[in-house]
Amino acid sequence: MSQDFVKDITKRDVDFAQWYTDIVRKAELADYSSVKGCMVLRPAGYSLWENIQRYVDDRLKEMRHENVAMPMLIPEHMLLKEAEHVEGFAPEVAWVTHGGDSELAERLAIRPTSEVLFAEHFRNIIHSYRDLPKLYNQWVSVVRWEKTTRPFLRTTEFFWQEGHTCHVDHDDADREALLILDLYKEVCEEVLAIPVVGGRKTESERFAGAIETYTNETLMYDGKALQITTSHHLGDNFGKAFDIKYTAKDGKEKFVHQTSWAITTRSIGALIMVHGDDRGMVMPPRIAPVQVMIVPIAQNKAGVLENAKALEDKLHSEKIRVRLDDSDKNPGWKFNETEMKGIPVRIEMGPRDIENQQVIVVRRDTGEKIAMPMEGLTENIVKLLDEIQKNLFESAKKRADEKTEYMEDRETFNARIEKGGFAVTPWCGDASCEEKVKEETTATSRCMTFEDNEEPIVGKTCPHCGKEAKHIVHWAKAY
Amino acid sequence: MSQDFVKDITKRDVDFAQWYTDIVRKAELADYSSVKGCMVLRPAGYSLWENIQRYVDDRLKEMRHENVAMPMLIPEHMLLKEAEHVEGFAPEVAWVTHGGDSELAERLAIRPTSEVLFAEHFRNIIHSYRDLPKLYNQWVSVVRWEKTTRPFLRTTEFFWQEGHTCHVDHDDADREALLILDLYKEVCEEVLAIPVVGGRKTESERFAGAIETYTNETLMYDGKALQITTSHHLGDNFGKAFDIKYTAKDGKEKFVHQTSWAITTRSIGALIMVHGDDRGMVMPPRIAPVQVMIVPIAQNKAGVLENAKALEDKLHSEKIRVRLDDSDKNPGWKFNETEMKGIPVRIEMGPRDIENQQVIVVRRDTGEKIAMPMEGLTENIVKLLDEIQKNLFESAKKRADEKTEYMEDRETFNARIEKGGFAVTPWCGDASCEEKVKEETTATSRCMTFEDNEEPIVGKTCPHCGKEAKHIVHWAKAY
Repeated sequence: MSQDFVKDITKRDVDFAQWYTDIVRKAELADYSSVKGCMVLRPAGYSLWENIQRYVDDRLKEMRHENVAMPMLIPEHMLLKEAEHVEGFAPEVAWVTHGGDSELAERLAIRPTSEVLFAEHFRNIIHSYRDLPKLYNQWVSVVRWEKTTRPFLRTTEFFWQEGHTCHVDHDDADREALLILDLYKEVCEEVLAIPVVGGRKTESERFAGAIETYTNETLMYDGKALQITTSHHLGDNFGKAFDIKYTAKDGKEKFVHQTSWAITTRSIGALIMVHGDDRGMVMPPRIAPVQVMIVPIAQNKAGVLENAKALEDKLHSEKIRVRLDDSDKNPGWKFNETEMKGIPVRIEMGPRDIENQQVIVVRRDTGEKIAMPMEGLTENIVKLLDEIQKNLFESAKKRADEKTEYMEDRETFNARIEKGGFAVTPWCGDASCEEKVKEETTATSRCMTFEDNEEPIVGKTCPHCGKEAKHIVHWAKAY
Repeated sequence: MSQDFVKDITKRDVDFAQWYTDIVRKAELADYSSVKGCMVLRPAGYSLWENIQRYVDDRLKEMRHENVAMPMLIPEHMLLKEAEHVEGFAPEVAWVTHGGDSELAERLAIRPTSEVLFAEHFRNIIHSYRDLPKLYNQWVSVVRWEKTTRPFLRTTEFFWQEGHTCHVDHDDADREALLILDLYKEVCEEVLAIPVVGGRKTESERFAGAIETYTNETLMYDGKALQITTSHHLGDNFGKAFDIKYTAKDGKEKFVHQTSWAITTRSIGALIMVHGDDRGMVMPPRIAPVQVMIVPIAQNKAGVLENAKALEDKLHSEKIRVRLDDSDKNPGWKFNETEMKGIPVRIEMGPRDIENQQVIVVRRDTGEKIAMPMEGLTENIVKLLDEIQKNLFESAKKRADEKTEYMEDRETFNARIEKGGFAVTPWCGDASCEEKVKEETTATSRCMTFEDNEEPIVGKTCPHCGKEAKHIVHWAKAY
């Protein structure tokens, strides 16, 4: 029985896409629904999202952001107000045309994103410099009519937070967009244990309506990149399109400068593809809904369940997220379940362990088995959870570093793109050059570092077209 | 200035509907949007919802419920599967007919409620009695195409939690539905300080697809009733329509029995209409986003802001939700703002107070001003917040009791309905009798007590038709 459980999963190196789907299903993270491209987030998947939410929400509130809720529907004429924005989103909008039995006078878009709703509200409530900055956020789902979908990675409906802020000028908006990029880096690296590369998007990869899109990019196990979070500086594009003005200290009327930014359920797809292995999901302890699973051995023997329950209570009282599996499944089956679900630590406790005043502790990340005395157990489990968190980040960082390569010639570039990973090169800054790279290699520019026209760019040429280099770009095939 | 602020609100006894709208706008709870019937939940309104969420979510998790997320869209054929359910909801569904530029093969409903989505998922994941009970919940918004809308009370889109559970049999489902009714009573009375009357809906007032709808009903300041929460026992209606079967311990295949239940943003409308007064919103301390506002007097004088800040830090460290208003508005304006927004306690602190080692504390509920020494201030504020919470509940209970009247004759009934409040009468149980009462008085049956056919019903006649009484019913005009 125990063997079959694992054999059910495709191996990562055999078929990564199938492995991914297997994990999503077998670890009970999500299920398909009868609505095209929409998934059911199951308790294990949704609680990951709740933990991400809690961390991000607390941090945003510390930074003085306030939560609000906008309608999920957008009248068509509003979506048309900002030209680039509508061009970017119109092709993937779900349209509501009927309410009950009546056809609507104007069709309504289910929000693909909410810039225009916030813009309209900001126009109503912002009058003076005293009303600025406005730092708003909402936790909702959005709908984009995608052609091909995969659970978490690309779904017709997905969950996110979307931050929308208004500022007195360009610099204050830019400061906010970069602060949020830093916050997202902190969430990715310290909570999700996923190393990221931060930077700016090239013009052609920018959000529709933004003057600058900042991004955190990360590498999956298979070497493909994933944009895990973005933060957009919108300039005064929406301010002008929606007439959001304020009276400045000098009495002059000015347009607000805005930002918008998001982290989505896509980050759970990244969690799977960065940390998961051939035995199932692997959850970093800081985000794991269950950090420790206690599996009693010979649980029908006198004292076993009582001791296991006492241990559960003890760990629980120390704020460890612990569960006891006292179901009537056999221990081997339970071991496989904790591994498949990616629970960071398993504690095995049988009659002999109780006699010896110890337990067997098994790490999900390394598979290592450790006999730990009951004395000092709580402290040692807390230490172990920290150690696992650190190890997962470091392992992921090592894999990413091994797949990240700087080059100044096209041959090395092609080889790296073929193998997977980030190929880092100087670049001229021309959209046509970027487009040509994409056509020839299917790699896209993921981000530019922050040192445009500075060392180490000066004097370099673009290996793709031979012109003078102005930026350093991370390229990769991407999700 | 300070007078005008309050003059802007219509008096409750002059025009209750206009008073309500004034509070929603002036206390900055919600704003209108350009989407018909949809509101913008502003920070003050949304944080009330967050506090309700946190309390309910913690309690549901203690009771072993798990959060999940279903898609927001429902294919039309799925909505048609349970006959009564579709009849109840089809007239108010918003239909998605196009995705991007293409017309969809089948139109999709934006969920008005999610019974059918959960039913489909339950069919996929429930196989054995070991999988039961399944206790699921989700926090989302739903859309119902309403003809006339009012912020919080009746909006096209509204926020709620919807619980959906599966059980081995009728009794276990009934137990769950009643447990949740009790939980909701606890939330209303202990957190929102709103007294409720619990009971069962008559057949004609039941949820579409339920075999029993339990409800908590409450009276607003104007004497109209509001259904604040409901819990439905669905029997095996959806089990049969969606073929949700499990293998019982005896090896036989059985249909699951289900419940569904919700608390919505409507409860914020009730909060306003139960506690608000002619000076603005009144928030019960347990749910108030800000419990204490410190207003410095002569804040430019040396030491005032420093002392006020020190007090803020001190109260904050004791888990009191406190803010300091150090803006450049004048104190009178700040006083009016704290009153309009319904902040339970205001602390005024000026140079002379600092000298005397005291502050002036003003209760929002009674308007009482109390000089409190700095020594022991935190403990006294905590006590005062408890006292305000208790007073708000007791005042609301007294008002409701005064408007609740038992009678056995139609004349007294008509007079009570006319005055507003609950008219409590024996009732025969016939839908046609109930319909006639509604036609003649516009009052509806709000709930039946749990003592059907028992004392004190035996031997009574229905005052509406003269037949034998079987139930005791609360009747009222309702929102």
